[in-house]
Amino acid sequence: MAKSLGRLFRAFQRLGSLTPAKTHLSPPSTGVPEGTFVRTVVELPSLFCLKPRDFSLPNSSWGPEMMRLYEYYNSQCEVETEGGGKQEGPWRRLPSYNRLFKYAPGGLYLSKIIQSKARLFTRNMRAPGAAFEYVAFANIEEQKCVCIFQAGHLLEGPPGHVHGGAIATMIDTVTGTHATLLHGPVMTANLNINYRSPIPLGSTVLLESTHDKREGRKIFMSCKMTSSDGSKVHSETTVLFLSISVSYLLR
Amino acid sequence: MAKSLGRLFRAFQRLGSLTPAKTHLSPPSTGVPEGTFVRTVVELPSLFCLKPRDFSLPNSSWGPEMMRLYEYYNSQCEVETEGGGKQEGPWRRLPSYNRLFKYAPGGLYLSKIIQSKARLFTRNMRAPGAAFEYVAFANIEEQKCVCIFQAGHLLEGPPGHVHGGAIATMIDTVTGTHATLLHGPVMTANLNINYRSPIPLGSTVLLESTHDKREGRKIFMSCKMTSSDGSKVHSETTVLFLSISVSYLLR
Repeated sequence: MAKSLGRLFRAFQRLGSLTPAKTHLSPPSTGVPEGTFVRTVVELPSLFCLKPRDFSLPNSSWGPEMMRLYEYYNSQCEVETEGGGKQEGPWRRLPSYNRLFKYAPGGLYLSKIIQSKARLFTRNMRAPGAAFEYVAFANIEEQKCVCIFQAGHLLEGPPGHVHGGAIATMIDTVTGTHATLLHGPVMTANLNINYRSPIPLGSTVLLESTHDKREGRKIFMSCKMTSSDGSKVHSETTVLFLSISVSYLLR
Repeated sequence: MAKSLGRLFRAFQRLGSLTPAKTHLSPPSTGVPEGTFVRTVVELPSLFCLKPRDFSLPNSSWGPEMMRLYEYYNSQCEVETEGGGKQEGPWRRLPSYNRLFKYAPGGLYLSKIIQSKARLFTRNMRAPGAAFEYVAFANIEEQKCVCIFQAGHLLEGPPGHVHGGAIATMIDTVTGTHATLLHGPVMTANLNINYRSPIPLGSTVLLESTHDKREGRKIFMSCKMTSSDGSKVHSETTVLFLSISVSYLLR
């Protein structure tokens, strides 16, 4: 089962449809995989179901700064050839859904009701602009990943500013996505955040994830969060991930 | 203004109505304070407004484990005297609201619309059981703070499990609340989390916050997150807070 999912994961990556978060596994290309986990059903949004919402696409809540940065990176996803044609550029936009697993067996406590209603934490609200608005772009050749994040009014911590936990959530999400793209499924083992300056609600900020090194199962990443023009540092973080087999979570 | 808010904060603490989070400032006892921040209006939920919802009270979504732990700590908030009367016990339940500031001026980016709609990140959903269900209790004499946390289905990270960012959010919230109770308003400067084992969605877990030391403006806290019976460690964290003046955020 784990191997099967792993193969599908890599196949999905090869297709260029890069998985948007470490919690997302790729939809299989030939149907629901057989395995010992009877209750595991993988949703197949792009093949057999109604098209799910891709949260990484612009919506009416995106402000000018969010749109400016989005357009900057998006324009580098496809470039013109000398003959006037189009070809893949150095960057890829990473699509982002609020779930892929319909039923994810998760252990002792997980009831069927919880399973069926589960949603990715960063994409659990449909109201545009209310909470986490973000889009990530990856540059596989240069092993870079950036994320443009617009912080909604429901993320308040200190009065008028973004909650430290919401900042941690974005850092974990972006570095985890990046680590997964490079090394397959991972789990966070350590998150060490230095908060440098508070982020006013409504701001658009930039996260830059860097792959530092890999030692066996350990993957070392770092992340810098700055104002959209890069002039102000909001946080600096190191993250340690452990490479895992998908079966670890589906036990 | 800052001094005025500081006095009100301490007065509120003396009254025993302990502030539930570092982002919450106490309502003044005599009306809206005058000051230079014309746009700052402090909501007065318990005195002049409709009673706001206290999210720390049980609701229909709380499972048996959440209720058992709640009743254990709640029973120690008021104890019987020898004469059969009642008196304050060693623990206090910390009330928890989704906002106190109606308009929190927060800097360049904060529009009036965002200000008026802002809600505390951990209390931004009204649907019982969907996201963060938690209640914190403090024992001031022993400088302890515990929090019972039931993780809802909208907090998913790895399939069937709680997102690392949601775990970070609870740790930041509980240790921040605890630090604020002991030392007044604080901001998170460093959050260093070691994730030991994943938390299945729907679980009830226990957070124990410890005050380690204070050095000038630096407040060192730690936090252990375990299964509800304490047998399994989910995470171990150190947190550094900086003591701040409220005016820092209202500039």
